[in-house]
Amino acid sequence: MKLRILFSVFLFTLITHLHSQEKVRNLIMMIPDGTSSSVLALARWYKFGACVADNCRLAIDPHICGMVSTYNSDSPIGDSAPTGSTFATGYLSNTGFVATYPVSSGKEKDLVEVDPLRAYHPLFTILEAAKLQGKSTGIVMTSEFTHATPADFTAHTPDRDNEEAIAIQMVYNHLNIVFGGGLQYLDPAKRKDGLDLLNVLRTRNYQLVTTVDQFEALTPADTLVYGLFAEDYLPNNLDRNPAEVPSIAEMTRKAIKLLTENPNGFFLMVEGSKIDWSAHANDPVGVITEFLAFDDAVKEAMDFANRDGYTAVVIAPDHGNSGISLGNSRSDSTYDVLPINDLIQPLRDCKLTGEGITRFILANPAETDNIFFENTGIRLTEEEIQQVNNALNSTDKYLLPVTVATLISKNTYVGFTTHGHTGEDVMLAVYHPGNYRPGGVIKSTELHHYMTEILDTPDLDSLTTSHFCIDTIALKGLDWEIAHADSTSAKLIIRPKKDAKIHAEIEASTDYITIFRKEKVVNTIPLLSPAIYVVPLQHFFIPKNLGELLAEEFLNGK
Amino acid sequence: MKLRILFSVFLFTLITHLHSQEKVRNLIMMIPDGTSSSVLALARWYKFGACVADNCRLAIDPHICGMVSTYNSDSPIGDSAPTGSTFATGYLSNTGFVATYPVSSGKEKDLVEVDPLRAYHPLFTILEAAKLQGKSTGIVMTSEFTHATPADFTAHTPDRDNEEAIAIQMVYNHLNIVFGGGLQYLDPAKRKDGLDLLNVLRTRNYQLVTTVDQFEALTPADTLVYGLFAEDYLPNNLDRNPAEVPSIAEMTRKAIKLLTENPNGFFLMVEGSKIDWSAHANDPVGVITEFLAFDDAVKEAMDFANRDGYTAVVIAPDHGNSGISLGNSRSDSTYDVLPINDLIQPLRDCKLTGEGITRFILANPAETDNIFFENTGIRLTEEEIQQVNNALNSTDKYLLPVTVATLISKNTYVGFTTHGHTGEDVMLAVYHPGNYRPGGVIKSTELHHYMTEILDTPDLDSLTTSHFCIDTIALKGLDWEIAHADSTSAKLIIRPKKDAKIHAEIEASTDYITIFRKEKVVNTIPLLSPAIYVVPLQHFFIPKNLGELLAEEFLNGK
Repeated sequence: MKLRILFSVFLFTLITHLHSQEKVRNLIMMIPDGTSSSVLALARWYKFGACVADNCRLAIDPHICGMVSTYNSDSPIGDSAPTGSTFATGYLSNTGFVATYPVSSGKEKDLVEVDPLRAYHPLFTILEAAKLQGKSTGIVMTSEFTHATPADFTAHTPDRDNEEAIAIQMVYNHLNIVFGGGLQYLDPAKRKDGLDLLNVLRTRNYQLVTTVDQFEALTPADTLVYGLFAEDYLPNNLDRNPAEVPSIAEMTRKAIKLLTENPNGFFLMVEGSKIDWSAHANDPVGVITEFLAFDDAVKEAMDFANRDGYTAVVIAPDHGNSGISLGNSRSDSTYDVLPINDLIQPLRDCKLTGEGITRFILANPAETDNIFFENTGIRLTEEEIQQVNNALNSTDKYLLPVTVATLISKNTYVGFTTHGHTGEDVMLAVYHPGNYRPGGVIKSTELHHYMTEILDTPDLDSLTTSHFCIDTIALKGLDWEIAHADSTSAKLIIRPKKDAKIHAEIEASTDYITIFRKEKVVNTIPLLSPAIYVVPLQHFFIPKNLGELLAEEFLNGK
Repeated sequence: MKLRILFSVFLFTLITHLHSQEKVRNLIMMIPDGTSSSVLALARWYKFGACVADNCRLAIDPHICGMVSTYNSDSPIGDSAPTGSTFATGYLSNTGFVATYPVSSGKEKDLVEVDPLRAYHPLFTILEAAKLQGKSTGIVMTSEFTHATPADFTAHTPDRDNEEAIAIQMVYNHLNIVFGGGLQYLDPAKRKDGLDLLNVLRTRNYQLVTTVDQFEALTPADTLVYGLFAEDYLPNNLDRNPAEVPSIAEMTRKAIKLLTENPNGFFLMVEGSKIDWSAHANDPVGVITEFLAFDDAVKEAMDFANRDGYTAVVIAPDHGNSGISLGNSRSDSTYDVLPINDLIQPLRDCKLTGEGITRFILANPAETDNIFFENTGIRLTEEEIQQVNNALNSTDKYLLPVTVATLISKNTYVGFTTHGHTGEDVMLAVYHPGNYRPGGVIKSTELHHYMTEILDTPDLDSLTTSHFCIDTIALKGLDWEIAHADSTSAKLIIRPKKDAKIHAEIEASTDYITIFRKEKVVNTIPLLSPAIYVVPLQHFFIPKNLGELLAEEFLNGK
C-alpha cells in the first residue's frame, strides 16, 4: 500500500514536472517570408556543394517537425498581412489586413465563419500579450519595420500599405528593440504628414542607431532601441556592405542580447523579409542567399535557446512563393544525371542578387552588358540587352528586376511557376527546451495557440475585449466626437457632457489620453496599447474601462 | 536508501520498456512516387473544398514529422530506381540501378565515397532481411509489379528497364503477396524470352487472381498470391472501373489482412506509382486524384497500425516531380483574392485524368472535341484540336498525354516547372506505436537505418556478404563457367574439377541449384534468395558458402 502511494506521488511529480516544462520564458518566432520548402534543398546544395555529411546541414534542418497550412479567411493562397496576423492573433483574415478581424466575402468564399459584427476590429497580438506579461519585446526584419509581417505583431489596420499609420502605432506600442530598415517612416521631412516620430522616440528614451559602429556598441543596458540602417528596406545579404548594414544574424544576436536582461523574459519576432521579394522577382540567387542569411539567424536563435534552457524557437513561413523548384524545363529529360556542379555553379557565379544588379544597371544603364557579365558570368546577347533597355524605359518598376532575374535564371536549373504566392503547406520547425512540439500538418491558427500556450500568455480574446473596445461602448454616458480623421490621423474628443469646459483627447495610434481644462493640460493617462482608429468603421478602439476612468477624472478635474 | 533502490528499479524498468517499445513486429513502407509536398494542400482543397475543420484532413496529415533528402549517388535530383533502393538497402546509387551498388561517376560528381571494387554488386534489401526473419512480405503498387520502386525491394539489377529479368527474380524471391499490374511479365506468350513464369508460380503453390471477384474472395488462408489486374500498369483511380480493378486502398487492406496471419510479422511496401506518372505529364487532376487514392491506402495502413499496436508505418516519396504548385502565371497578381471555388472547380470538373482522356482519344480520334468537353467541361479551340491531332500523329508517344494535360492545366491555377523530377526534400510521415520517430531533415540513408532498427533486422551488410558473394570467391577451388548469358538469362555450371561427370547448374535469378549426374538430376538445393547474374560484370552473385556446400554434395553424389 505504502509502495503504491509512493509510486503515485512519483508519477504525479513527474507529470507536474513534464507539464511545467511546456511553459517557456522566452519565445522567438522566426518567419522566412514566402519560403517554399523546396528552398531548403536549393540552399543546402548551394552552400555545401557535394558535401552530404552531418556537418553540411542547415541550422533549421534538425528542427523540422511538421507543416503548416496557411491561407486567408477567404482564399487558399495567403497574403503576408493576414497570414502573419494569424500567427500573431489566432484569427484568419483578408488580404492586406494587419492584426484585424476579417470582413466576410460571402458564404461561398469564407473558409471560416466570419462574424459581421467584428469586421475590421483590431485583434490583440501575442507580442502585445507578452508585453502585458512584463516581458521585453523586439522585432527584427530586413524590410522597412512598417512592412506587413512586423506590423502583424505590433499594429492594427486593414490596410497594410498605410505604412505611415503603422509607424505611429509601432512607435507608441512600447517595443524594446526594432532592428531593420524604414528610417523614412520616422522622419518628419520624409513623412507625408510631417509627423516627427524621431522626436517622440527621443522623448521616450529610445536610442536610434543607424550605423554599424553604433549598433555594435549597444549593450544590455540599452533596453529601448531603434536600429534602422536604410531609409526603406535593407539590401539583400549578398549585396550588403557589412560596414554599413548588419546582417539579419547579427541583428538577431544583438536583439537577443539586449532582450535577455529582463528577468520576465522576452518575445522576439525575426523576419527574413526579402526571401519573399526575391521569389516574387523569380531571382534564384536572391531566394537562396536571403534564405541562407535567415538560416544564419536561425543558428543564433538556436544557439541561444540551447544555452538558455527557457527559450522556444518557432519557425514557419507565412506562405509559399513563386513555385520555385530544383529542376526546370532545361532538365526535363536529363535531371537524373545532372551533376552537382552543373546545378550550383551558375548560381554561385553570381556575385550579386538580381536586386543588386538592378541597382547597378539603374545607376549606369549604358554599362548593362558589363555589369551583367561581371556579376553573373553571363554575356548577354543583343536581344537580351534590348530586353533590359525596354524594362528600363517601362513605367512598370517591377519589369527591370523581373527581367534581370529571368536572364539569371534561364542559365540555371531553377524553375518558377508564378510571380505570386503559392498555396502549399509550409514547413514548421520548432525548438522547445522540453521537446514539447506540435507535429503533423497543423493550421496557422493552431500554431498561434501553441505559441500562446507555451508562453503562457493571458487569453488574447479577453485582452482584445478589454483593450480594443469600440468607442460607442467604452464611452457610454459621455459626450464624444471624432475630429479631422483621415487615413493616418484622427482625434477622439471626449467630454463629460456637451459643451463642458473640461475634455479629453486621444490621437489615433498613440498610447495616452490628454485631459484639458480649457486649453490647459491637466493630466495625462497612459494606455497599455495605442488607441486604434479604424478608418473604414470611423470608430476608435480603446480600453473598455476608459469611460469610467474618464468620468472619474472629469469629476476630480472640476 | 531502500527508496533510492526502488526508484532505480523503477527507472530501469521504464527505460527497458521504452527501449523495447522501439521495436515493432510489422513495418509498412508507403511510397507516393514523385510526390512533391505541395500536392498535399492541392489534394486537401480538392477533396474537402472550403472545409478546414479537423475532420477535413488527409490521412497522412497528422503523421508528418520531418523531411527526407533524396538523391542519386552522383546527382542531386533523384531517379526512382536508386532513391527507392536507398530506402531498401541504405546505399545511394546511380540512375536506373535497382538495389545495386553504384558505379563511381568521378570524384567531382559522386556525393558519397564509392568503392570501385563493389560496383554493380547486388545489395540485400530490408524486405529480403524481413523474409529471413521469418516474416511474410508483400508489395502493392499501381504500376506493373516489375517497375522500379517495387523492384527496389525485391530484385537486383543496374538496369531498371530490364523488367523481364526483374520479373524472374521476383517470382523466385519468396514474396507472399504481390498486388498490382504486369501480367504480361509472367505470360510466356508475351515475354520475349518465352519463359513460363505463370507455371513457376503454379508449381510453387501461388494463386494468381486477376478479377475483383477472385481478389475479394481471398482469405487469410491464402498466403501466396499474385493479384494482377492489368497486362501492364493499372488505370488511374479516377479512370478505374471498380468492377475490374481494385483500388490501391483495397489492395493495401487485403494485403495487410493476408500478411497478418504470420505470427512473426510482415514487411509490406505500398507504392502510389502513378502520382509520378501524372506529374511527368503535368496533369494536375492525375496528380491530385492518384495522391488521394494513395491517401486512402494510408488510412487503411494507419487504421490497422492503430488497432494492432505492433506495426509502424513509414511514408516518404522517393523524390519530387514536376515543380507542381497551387498558383501559376494566371494568378501572378490575383493570388491573394482567388476564392476556393475558382481554384478547385476546374479540377473537379474533370471526370477523367489526362491518361484516361488520352486513352479515349486514341480509341476515337475523330471525337477529340466531344471527349474533351464531356470529361473536362472545356471546349477546345480549332487550334487546340489541331495540337491534339499533331500529337496523335507524332512518333513521340508521350506527346499526346502531355498535350492533353497541358490543355487541362491551362484552365486551372496549378503550375509546373518541368516534365522531370525535382530535387527538393520530400515529406516524411511516420506512425510508430511507441511514438519513436525520426524528425528534422534526414537523409534517405538515415530513413533506411531507422527502418532496419525498428524492425530489428539482421545487419544488411552482413546479409549482402553472405548471400550475394561473387562467384570467383564463393566457388573457389571448383571448376565453373557461365553459359549462354544474355540480359535476362545465364547459366552457371559448376563441377568439382574439369570434365567431372557430376555437375551443378544455377539459372540466373532462380533460387535453387540443380545437381546432375550425367543428365540426371540427383539433388536440388534451395537458396534463400535468387542467384543474381550481373550483366555488366558477367559474374554471378550467390551464397558465400555455396562452394563448400557443393564440394560436399559432389562427394556424396559420387
